[in-house]
Amino acid sequence: MEQAYSRIEHQGLKDRVVSAEVAASWIQDGMTLGLSGFTRAGDVKALPHALVERAKNEVTFKVDVFTGASLGSDIDKIFAEAGILRKRLPFQADPTMRKKMNEGEFLFVDQHLSHTSEMLRANTLEQIDVAVIEAVGITEDGMIIPTTSVGNSLIFAENAKEIIVEINQAQTESLKGVHDLYSPGKQGERQPIPLTKPEDSIGTKGIPVNPDKIKGIIFTNQPDSPSNIVPPDAETKMMANHLIDFLKNEVKKGRLSKSLAPLQSGIGSVANAVFHGLLESDFEDLKVYSEVLQDAVFDLIDAGKVSFASGCSITLSEDKMNEVFGHFDRYKDQLVLRPQEISNHPEIIRRLGLISINTALEMDIYGNVNSTHVRGTNMMNGIGGSGDFARNARLAIFVTKSIAKDGKISSIVPFVSHVDHTEHDVDILVTEQGYADLRGLAPRQRVELIIKHCAHPMYREALMDYYQSALEKGGHTPHDLEKAFSWHSQYEKEGTMQPLVTV
Amino acid sequence: MEQAYSRIEHQGLKDRVVSAEVAASWIQDGMTLGLSGFTRAGDVKALPHALVERAKNEVTFKVDVFTGASLGSDIDKIFAEAGILRKRLPFQADPTMRKKMNEGEFLFVDQHLSHTSEMLRANTLEQIDVAVIEAVGITEDGMIIPTTSVGNSLIFAENAKEIIVEINQAQTESLKGVHDLYSPGKQGERQPIPLTKPEDSIGTKGIPVNPDKIKGIIFTNQPDSPSNIVPPDAETKMMANHLIDFLKNEVKKGRLSKSLAPLQSGIGSVANAVFHGLLESDFEDLKVYSEVLQDAVFDLIDAGKVSFASGCSITLSEDKMNEVFGHFDRYKDQLVLRPQEISNHPEIIRRLGLISINTALEMDIYGNVNSTHVRGTNMMNGIGGSGDFARNARLAIFVTKSIAKDGKISSIVPFVSHVDHTEHDVDILVTEQGYADLRGLAPRQRVELIIKHCAHPMYREALMDYYQSALEKGGHTPHDLEKAFSWHSQYEKEGTMQPLVTV
Ligand SMILES: CC(C)(COP(=O)(O)OP(=O)(O)OC[C@H]1O[C@@H](n2cnc3c(N)ncnc32)[C@H](O)[C@@H]1OP(=O)(O)O)[C@@H](O)C(=O)NCCC(=O)NCCS
Ligand SMILES: CC(C)(COP(=O)(O)OP(=O)(O)OC[C@H]1O[C@@H](n2cnc3c(N)ncnc32)[C@H](O)[C@@H]1OP(=O)(O)O)[C@@H](O)C(=O)NCCC(=O)NCCS
Repeated sequence: MEQAYSRIEHQGLKDRVVSAEVAASWIQDGMTLGLSGFTRAGDVKALPHALVERAKNEVTFKVDVFTGASLGSDIDKIFAEAGILRKRLPFQADPTMRKKMNEGEFLFVDQHLSHTSEMLRANTLEQIDVAVIEAVGITEDGMIIPTTSVGNSLIFAENAKEIIVEINQAQTESLKGVHDLYSPGKQGERQPIPLTKPEDSIGTKGIPVNPDKIKGIIFTNQPDSPSNIVPPDAETKMMANHLIDFLKNEVKKGRLSKSLAPLQSGIGSVANAVFHGLLESDFEDLKVYSEVLQDAVFDLIDAGKVSFASGCSITLSEDKMNEVFGHFDRYKDQLVLRPQEISNHPEIIRRLGLISINTALEMDIYGNVNSTHVRGTNMMNGIGGSGDFARNARLAIFVTKSIAKDGKISSIVPFVSHVDHTEHDVDILVTEQGYADLRGLAPRQRVELIIKHCAHPMYREALMDYYQSALEKGGHTPHDLEKAFSWHSQYEKEGTMQPLVTV
Repeated sequence: MEQAYSRIEHQGLKDRVVSAEVAASWIQDGMTLGLSGFTRAGDVKALPHALVERAKNEVTFKVDVFTGASLGSDIDKIFAEAGILRKRLPFQADPTMRKKMNEGEFLFVDQHLSHTSEMLRANTLEQIDVAVIEAVGITEDGMIIPTTSVGNSLIFAENAKEIIVEINQAQTESLKGVHDLYSPGKQGERQPIPLTKPEDSIGTKGIPVNPDKIKGIIFTNQPDSPSNIVPPDAETKMMANHLIDFLKNEVKKGRLSKSLAPLQSGIGSVANAVFHGLLESDFEDLKVYSEVLQDAVFDLIDAGKVSFASGCSITLSEDKMNEVFGHFDRYKDQLVLRPQEISNHPEIIRRLGLISINTALEMDIYGNVNSTHVRGTNMMNGIGGSGDFARNARLAIFVTKSIAKDGKISSIVPFVSHVDHTEHDVDILVTEQGYADLRGLAPRQRVELIIKHCAHPMYREALMDYYQSALEKGGHTPHDLEKAFSWHSQYEKEGTMQPLVTV
């Protein structure tokens, strides 16, 4: 306990320590909470559970929950099960929450991850009543030092009426110094963001707050949930190889140097596989400017391939977590964690000219991408930062397996059932079949490339048939709207997109 | 003629004057041309006509034509008719060109207007063989002074192997000094763009070029094509009023001051009507940070409502043109013309927190917007800058009349037939019926607002019926994919989207 208290260096705050139950009792029905946490890292672990307990005794108790991105520690699950949510934003990735949301049990607002902070600052989202932020500690002058993610914590703390801090003793104190907190200030009054390289440090080492706003401090001692990433398999390795081939070609053409350009990659197994693939490539002095730093980034640092990585969270598998946080000082000089507003800022993304790699659910023959909605209807996770990156990056790359559900679904379809990334924003498509480079191509030129290089062979003919019948109608982007969603409709009825054999 | 020569202040360039025919003879089959011109302003007027003449004697003669945006002087029309185009980008707005493109006669690449320059710089579009740029004159040190638009002229000049200049005597020399040419340089090597207010001047007064690159100079004497804007009618006035009501409300809520935020508006009659509406409002000290400066901007400057306007072209009706360019010194201190890369730069759009107003063809019940494709197939004009603005602005507003073709088409549909602006990027929808404020709302919340406030009464019930049947299927964004495009299909077959009366 004494050790825990030593993490509160600010003398006046030591007497604010309370139990999670007491803190939970402060939360009123109808409040808006801003919780730290981004992709299972740095989320607050005690208060959410206490809140669910507390709500059991209330007739009506609902809150709006804003976060950085998805949470670990089963928080989104228990929130959804307890039915205490009115609104949730801007991202989630929990199966139970997904189910309840799709049943319409609560409202989910799917936002670009760089947008939430602007809306809070502009007062177009409701004000945060209570920000709840996981911390390594609080400095003498009252700065909150975040843990393994920054996410939206800075703007939540700025915007909130009150703050509750969870000091998590399971998070190593050597995280101190890895954060770089910069707030751009109000639109119209702000200066350029003075960041021109991933390694630039432009802000403070913690979240500066008025200590009076800190209403309570809770001690916890629980590691982050490990990432549920699966190691590269044959298919993700093939996708990684195609992508690396593409990048090698860009180097050969003189468009990129051997250190490429700062890399952003979405979470997931393909992204991880791509980064693994870089280990054996002859690219060198790579830099990462991304949201989530996954296992492979640390392998690349170990191998001397990546010289610097900027992120807004560190999300690792169990083994890697022990390894990295057991020797965190080893990595500290090569890492920085920033607010998601800065990791995903259009200004920086365009300036640095990022290579951005994100995963799609489905793509269509013209290069439109669906990242979020299964059959246009059911939300999977959310758009996350993929839109911030795809619109503004140097290279917007989308990857997906060419088929899903044992081939019953083609991920290349005539018309995507929801558009998250328009044809204007999508440069390169990659599947295990190959890649299609769509830059500077007109719609009719894209079709053949996508079908030939990305679609699964079992669907190529049917895609070509669709295109041929659309071509008869003509147009800049030939479509036959009567058949555009027929693949999705057939799947719904027959359980497969494969052409039905007529007897 | 002497007067014309006096516009070439650089001594060594005076002997490069040639006829348009001679210059046209330099253009080879297969070349890529970068032509000045943005929304009918500042386009080169002689060489394109000479080129078409020349091509009449060639068996095969095709070129790629890159511009800022749409051209005037019938150039896109004669290019399309002559069949000399292989590829055209990034925007056009000519009916003949539209028709030929939709018939597949040439390739059109529809790009965000801020993207072309990055692609040229990164060497992912083919290099410009010849840049052809309209100028007021050439300075002693060889700077080309553009005329009524800047568009992509700076990057074309930088990127091109050779440059042909058209000095247009019909363009007033008092345009000198109104331009501000800034090139951000290569991605990854560039500094922040040092612009924090619309009136900041950050570059040079002309396009700096190596005079050796200037292969020829043509004299012309022909005004820009006037804009074909129609004056506000009852409906556009209603739309303007709704939009102004919305803005007033934002001021009331303390989210905006009386000088709002820098305004961007797309070209067209609604945008012009909105700006006209501002004349009678009590907003003050307004600033414009836009692409095209239309008639109303000058009325607002005259009325003392707008204190500064930054654009990348000046496109006026015939009367206004005479008035403005007859007394251009009157406006010069309150105007600047920039490259479209800067007027549309995500860095600046986000920093300044623009209010962006663009026109949609159709919108769906969840707030997705189609700006380009009629029935998902036929290209109208292109996405233009609307995507640069909508993704990164403080407020992304889209306007459209609720019906088209005498009510046979509802512009609010179950599912847009092409997505240019996703639900994540669209804040406010406006029709003559009212406005829907979609910020921070989940999809199911948006539907009722859009149907109630934006759809035409004659389509509200049918839209609600669609939504109800979709709701039975559930989901975060309820859709019935079998019926999603049924309105478009019915229009194609029956000539109307209105519910058919079954006897
Ligand atoms: C798109 C996304 C859902 C893919 O996730 P993933 O875990 O890599 O992909 P998987 O291949 O495992 O697919 C996930 C599920 O979708 C299903 N699926 C995949 N393609 C599908 C398709 N075209 N149609 C329907 N379902 C599909 C899979 O079968 C799997 O289902 P299961 O959960 O029942 O097994 C995920 O990357 C995402 O949410 N992206 C959007 C946010 C984003 O890009 N973030 C990065 C920047 S922040
Ligand atoms: C969307 C856009 C085409 C609207 O243009 P506009 O001239 O203001 O609109 P109009 O109402 O006159 O409509 C133009 C035509 O489309 C038709 N139309 C309008 N809505 C339609 C719909 N939902 N379905 C089919 N046709 C439709 C009109 O009937 C009209 O047809 P016509 O030319 O045969 O008379 C135009 O604003 C545009 O190209 N926008 C995209 C680029 C952009 O936003 N630029 C601004 C920033 S750069």
